Amino acid sequence: MPSPFLPDLSDPIVAKAVALRDAYAKDAPARDQAGGRPVDQVRLLKESGLLVAAIPVDYGGTGASWLSILRAVREIARADGSLAHLFGYHHLPQHNVLSRATPEQQQRLLSAAAREHWLWSNSGNALSKTSTARRAPGDDGWLVSGFRPFSSGSHIADVIMVSWENARGQRLSGLVPADRAGIVIEDDWDGIGQRQTGSGTVTFQDLRLNDEELLGRADDPLTPFVSLVSLLQQSVLLNVFVGSAQGAFDEASAYTNTRSRPWIHSGVDRHVDDPWVKRKYGELAIRTLAATELADQAARSLDAIYGDGPALTLARRGQAAIDIATANLYAGETGLAVSNEIFEVMGARSATVANGFDRFWRNVRTHTLHNPAEYKKRSVGNWVLGGGHPVPAAYR
Amino acid sequence: MPSPFLPDLSDPIVAKAVALRDAYAKDAPARDQAGGRPVDQVRLLKESGLLVAAIPVDYGGTGASWLSILRAVREIARADGSLAHLFGYHHLPQHNVLSRATPEQQQRLLSAAAREHWLWSNSGNALSKTSTARRAPGDDGWLVSGFRPFSSGSHIADVIMVSWENARGQRLSGLVPADRAGIVIEDDWDGIGQRQTGSGTVTFQDLRLNDEELLGRADDPLTPFVSLVSLLQQSVLLNVFVGSAQGAFDEASAYTNTRSRPWIHSGVDRHVDDPWVKRKYGELAIRTLAATELADQAARSLDAIYGDGPALTLARRGQAAIDIATANLYAGETGLAVSNEIFEVMGARSATVANGFDRFWRNVRTHTLHNPAEYKKRSVGNWVLGGGHPVPAAYR
Amino acid sequence: MPSPFLPDLSDPIVAKAVALRDAYAKDAPARDQAGGRPVDQVRLLKESGLLVAAIPVDYGGTGASWLSILRAVREIARADGSLAHLFGYHHLPQHNVLSRATPEQQQRLLSAAAREHWLWSNSGNALSKTSTARRAPGDDGWLVSGFRPFSSGSHIADVIMVSWENARGQRLSGLVPADRAGIVIEDDWDGIGQRQTGSGTVTFQDLRLNDEELLGRADDPLTPFVSLVSLLQQSVLLNVFVGSAQGAFDEASAYTNTRSRPWIHSGVDRHVDDPWVKRKYGELAIRTLAATELADQAARSLDAIYGDGPALTLARRGQAAIDIATANLYAGETGLAVSNEIFEVMGARSATVANGFDRFWRNVRTHTLHNPAEYKKRSVGNWVLGGGHPVPAAYR
Amino acid sequence: MPSPFLPDLSDPIVAKAVALRDAYAKDAPARDQAGGRPVDQVRLLKESGLLVAAIPVDYGGTGASWLSILRAVREIARADGSLAHLFGYHHLPQHNVLSRATPEQQQRLLSAAAREHWLWSNSGNALSKTSTARRAPGDDGWLVSGFRPFSSGSHIADVIMVSWENARGQRLSGLVPADRAGIVIEDDWDGIGQRQTGSGTVTFQDLRLNDEELLGRADDPLTPFVSLVSLLQQSVLLNVFVGSAQGAFDEASAYTNTRSRPWIHSGVDRHVDDPWVKRKYGELAIRTLAATELADQAARSLDAIYGDGPALTLARRGQAAIDIATANLYAGETGLAVSNEIFEVMGARSATVANGFDRFWRNVRTHTLHNPAEYKKRSVGNWVLGGGHPVPAAYR
Repeated sequence: MPSPFLPDLSDPIVAKAVALRDAYAKDAPARDQAGGRPVDQVRLLKESGLLVAAIPVDYGGTGASWLSILRAVREIARADGSLAHLFGYHHLPQHNVLSRATPEQQQRLLSAAAREHWLWSNSGNALSKTSTARRAPGDDGWLVSGFRPFSSGSHIADVIMVSWENARGQRLSGLVPADRAGIVIEDDWDGIGQRQTGSGTVTFQDLRLNDEELLGRADDPLTPFVSLVSLLQQSVLLNVFVGSAQGAFDEASAYTNTRSRPWIHSGVDRHVDDPWVKRKYGELAIRTLAATELADQAARSLDAIYGDGPALTLARRGQAAIDIATANLYAGETGLAVSNEIFEVMGARSATVANGFDRFWRNVRTHTLHNPAEYKKRSVGNWVLGGGHPVPAAYR
Repeated sequence: MPSPFLPDLSDPIVAKAVALRDAYAKDAPARDQAGGRPVDQVRLLKESGLLVAAIPVDYGGTGASWLSILRAVREIARADGSLAHLFGYHHLPQHNVLSRATPEQQQRLLSAAAREHWLWSNSGNALSKTSTARRAPGDDGWLVSGFRPFSSGSHIADVIMVSWENARGQRLSGLVPADRAGIVIEDDWDGIGQRQTGSGTVTFQDLRLNDEELLGRADDPLTPFVSLVSLLQQSVLLNVFVGSAQGAFDEASAYTNTRSRPWIHSGVDRHVDDPWVKRKYGELAIRTLAATELADQAARSLDAIYGDGPALTLARRGQAAIDIATANLYAGETGLAVSNEIFEVMGARSATVANGFDRFWRNVRTHTLHNPAEYKKRSVGNWVLGGGHPVPAAYR
Repeated sequence: MPSPFLPDLSDPIVAKAVALRDAYAKDAPARDQAGGRPVDQVRLLKESGLLVAAIPVDYGGTGASWLSILRAVREIARADGSLAHLFGYHHLPQHNVLSRATPEQQQRLLSAAAREHWLWSNSGNALSKTSTARRAPGDDGWLVSGFRPFSSGSHIADVIMVSWENARGQRLSGLVPADRAGIVIEDDWDGIGQRQTGSGTVTFQDLRLNDEELLGRADDPLTPFVSLVSLLQQSVLLNVFVGSAQGAFDEASAYTNTRSRPWIHSGVDRHVDDPWVKRKYGELAIRTLAATELADQAARSLDAIYGDGPALTLARRGQAAIDIATANLYAGETGLAVSNEIFEVMGARSATVANGFDRFWRNVRTHTLHNPAEYKKRSVGNWVLGGGHPVPAAYR
Repeated sequence: MPSPFLPDLSDPIVAKAVALRDAYAKDAPARDQAGGRPVDQVRLLKESGLLVAAIPVDYGGTGASWLSILRAVREIARADGSLAHLFGYHHLPQHNVLSRATPEQQQRLLSAAAREHWLWSNSGNALSKTSTARRAPGDDGWLVSGFRPFSSGSHIADVIMVSWENARGQRLSGLVPADRAGIVIEDDWDGIGQRQTGSGTVTFQDLRLNDEELLGRADDPLTPFVSLVSLLQQSVLLNVFVGSAQGAFDEASAYTNTRSRPWIHSGVDRHVDDPWVKRKYGELAIRTLAATELADQAARSLDAIYGDGPALTLARRGQAAIDIATANLYAGETGLAVSNEIFEVMGARSATVANGFDRFWRNVRTHTLHNPAEYKKRSVGNWVLGGGHPVPAAYR
């Protein structure tokens, strides 16, 4: 039975993601139960070349479009929300380098990343202000102390973007190798979903960060271009949701076709011939197709403005922000609905730990929490009521 | 306050529709109350040149894309669902000529239509089999008797496509001038919405239809290309729904901005500053933006296959059918939700006959009834469960 | 076909309401179109004796329970939302007399009301502060000027409760005969629903109100008992919604049983045999049964505390407030959903002005606007989060 | 912070359940993770005396009402869905004895059960026909072979009701001690929720069942009274759902009050002061209060007819069936919605395995699958459309 969600295999980025997806699918339920580090899977990710997709060609990367990259996130999420998350979030600190670093830093970091297929991660949760720094002896760097929660990927990444607040509450960030002394991965991620993302705490014990590793300055303004990191994050999230919905749908329809039994009072021989089962699958398919379409459109909107670079205006960013908010809301609601409702058409025997179908709901439920629909809606509402474009900020 | 729904004014078809919309808006609530014939409005429609938009250039028409035409339907529906309906349904009998008529008939009918800016209509409701015909004296035509309900536009059109069933239950159709003897417009349309569409009964009293006016033959198969009339109908419907949602939204947000009062326990000075009002408008905007995006995508899918002509395959039609079903379901649900829920953020004083905001709900409620979501979902569900593409048929 | 919503005919109050309902049903669609004054219907209401239902036995009334009275509101609303509204709101100024008037006033007003079967109404919308008063010559009364919107029933009532604000913004009220000089009924009600409630403007042109007609004093505190007028209002509203849902349901199921045609692709002979039609009616029935049950329970909660009289505590009021808010929210959502969705199972031919089925939606849509769900939910949410019982106030 | 869901502690059955609930709550998340046998918890259940609640006083039981017993199920489910399930389903085979057994069997079994505080269970899933029997040597009993899935409680019960089909497909049942030779508990329950219910397979290896252990005969008709077992099952299910909703709500509101942080753009100091958080909790509370009220009403309906015994008519059963279907649908939808949506107002940090809040969703999701809403709605819809009362059958 073919899936109604057909990736564009003529796009090499997407094609690679589909290959990874198929590999990841084999033990996704087992790894969901186990949690921890998806070591083999990250190795495959590196070998695929996908980790350099967003790096400009000038630095040795692929220079792929966000449409391609986000579709790749989506494909991976059809089998494995954690790997999709790791791959997607990997691009956030890269954007920080592209938007805030000096040309010299860009050259150095992006070339190395492209050459060595680094996996990037981030330990600078915007809602926490739990790390500080003091000048290092020699006054050519900082010693960072404290900790940061929700540091997805830091347990398995090659480089980590580390952040802290200075005395005036301004945020500073720098990129360091993950194995630098002073970085302690607490391995305390205990989420009900996204179980292999390692989204736990990173502790900094006088972590030394050299001045040339600093990305930007404390008083850099949050320009529209720099702030695209929020839209990128929202884009990654939404494609994890859409991919999860697609994956849940496909596993469910395969189960219903091959294993579900007709209901005792249905009068049909095959469960798929019960009119309400058709209706329900139609409903879930239509919903997921719509979310997919909106996700593509949002990615195109991002591509349309990303090239503006530092010249990006608030108004042009605003338009993409609305498209991405639209797609994000649909994606979140669709992901939750599909991953919850599939059980109703699979039946009582489907809901086992061994089948692991509940991982889709646990993944989406976990990941949507970084993304309150209420504030996204208010922000769009403010705009449509004449209050102006969304003001760039974390999660917005 | 600008609308979040910006038509592409660089498209001349759309630009003309926007001009019509603005003209129609002036007395749309009054005409909704009055019902009857929108004589002046149809005159403006003819003068705009929009009635020849779909006619191929070879016959003197514009040869516009379905995307342009359906967006024009949508723009008109923002102010006036009836006129949007008349303009949209006008294309259904045209497709019948394009897909079933002989080259000679196409030349004759389409050239005249382009030259004289005919408004086309249809009196052949697929669910009714209430007209018959016998051979006319001279054996060169038919005498049609009986009646047909839901004959939208027949009260004001230049030509009418008339249908009847033969003794074997097969359907025949032909195109005749609206003023031909034997056609009686009953003027009995009493719908709660779409009040100027004249969707009442047409009675046939020995209406003579010459053999050369017949379109196709009784035993013509319903090929995928011929059956696109169903997808066209679904496309018109969905764009009436989307336009109605957009129009309802814009009238509501203007009202809220200028006339609504804050709730007694809100603690805010302006109603628009109440967080839940922002949220609600954000929610409605996002929903309507999504429906708009899906409508555009569905129109593109139709354009992508329409050129296949008689070579169109069931599989390629099926793909467009899914996109159109997706857009249609969202559009219907969005139209109903927006036109119902706007009142909650406008407040008690908004719900007057003079304001006429309820016409949007009455219009969408009326028009969605030709379009049961249940069967659309089942048909998509059948496909995703491996049962094959939707089988072409009326409303499908 | 029997209704699933069976009134308790052993209760004489309910039985009388059922008789009225059947009488009102005969021309309810026509009167909905006409608007204006339901003169004959109010006469029947007086003759029924229902107008004295809430007046204590000591004053010559029936002393019925709120459960009985609110069920009577509900029964009437099954056919006629306007009459249900007039009958229900009639009790609000009566409660003002019961909770704020002197014993002498109570004796005088309630005895006369019981003897003469007065219809009471109210012209003191809480959200408007558009009337004032000055002391009358002789200093034994007031001269009231200004106006008040949303004065339901004033066009046809025997007595009107008039309100104004003093210089300190405090509200004063008094009860006067409806035919007193200085009261001008503007007859400007133009609502899309509840069309015979006369909920328009009353203008006061030096309306004289004698001191002994004043109910309470400007600085009377809003005690829990006095504030029950808000809960009574919410109770009337919710029973209008529930009755509208029941009435819409019954008209729809009768139509579907006798007039609807099966869908073209259904494969069934009777529309009622289509599984989705059964499902939909089951869904709507269950929803309406639940709303009915909650409405009964809310009425019982009101009865349980009403007898506390002036000793009523905030906590005991709070419990009833929660029950009434619960019932009210369900009732409003149910009324909107049922009156909107019935069309889907009746089909395209049902949606005519002559059938008038849309009046249920227009009625509920109009009436729910005095009742924002947002604030009701916040108020309950505040309580469950430990913030204390709802603070008595208008609409709360 | 007090719960909005206050059990009636003056009812000793309820009071005992509350005490058990508090005991079970201590390690409910840990036991959810562990699965297996709740040995200590079943011991507490026996000691509480609740296992004899439904046994008539004449046999030494409490003779409690279904309202009391089902409220007890609900209270337990607030902390522990598995124990609530075991306690609730315990009553199903008891009803079989009450409705089908001979007076002698009733005396023997119910007296012993009351004296020894048996936990009863059932291994006769109605959808499976996977066990058979042949006459035992001596012709005074049966030898049962085969297996039965979904045998909740068999892993820990004292007695098990065993079922099989005879050659004509008729079902036979008997009650046997759980430790009888030939009963093999496969311990293969692997559900994503209700993890300590042991709802796995029981295999019968020539299990001997004596003729006097048989309950009824193969050709006993399914009388309305006997068929109340379906309504009892639906009642247990719905109270597990309502209790799960209440428990999820209370754990969530406590978390929000004490641990949640305000959203980054909220502008409030405490998360509970964000208007949307109040709204959401109000919404969830109202929904859960409504489900609770409907559950109580459904239990009263069951009590109202249960005493009819074998004289129970189809019509009286039908009325209760409608009330129970109504309550069941609301309860299922409420349980799923509350257990899913609480996370949105607790925030990202709440969704950990250690907190275990997701067990509520997993429990309700698992348990609702035995209970398709579609068929319940159709059955009610059939009735309201004049098709007669629900025909008694499994799950109906």
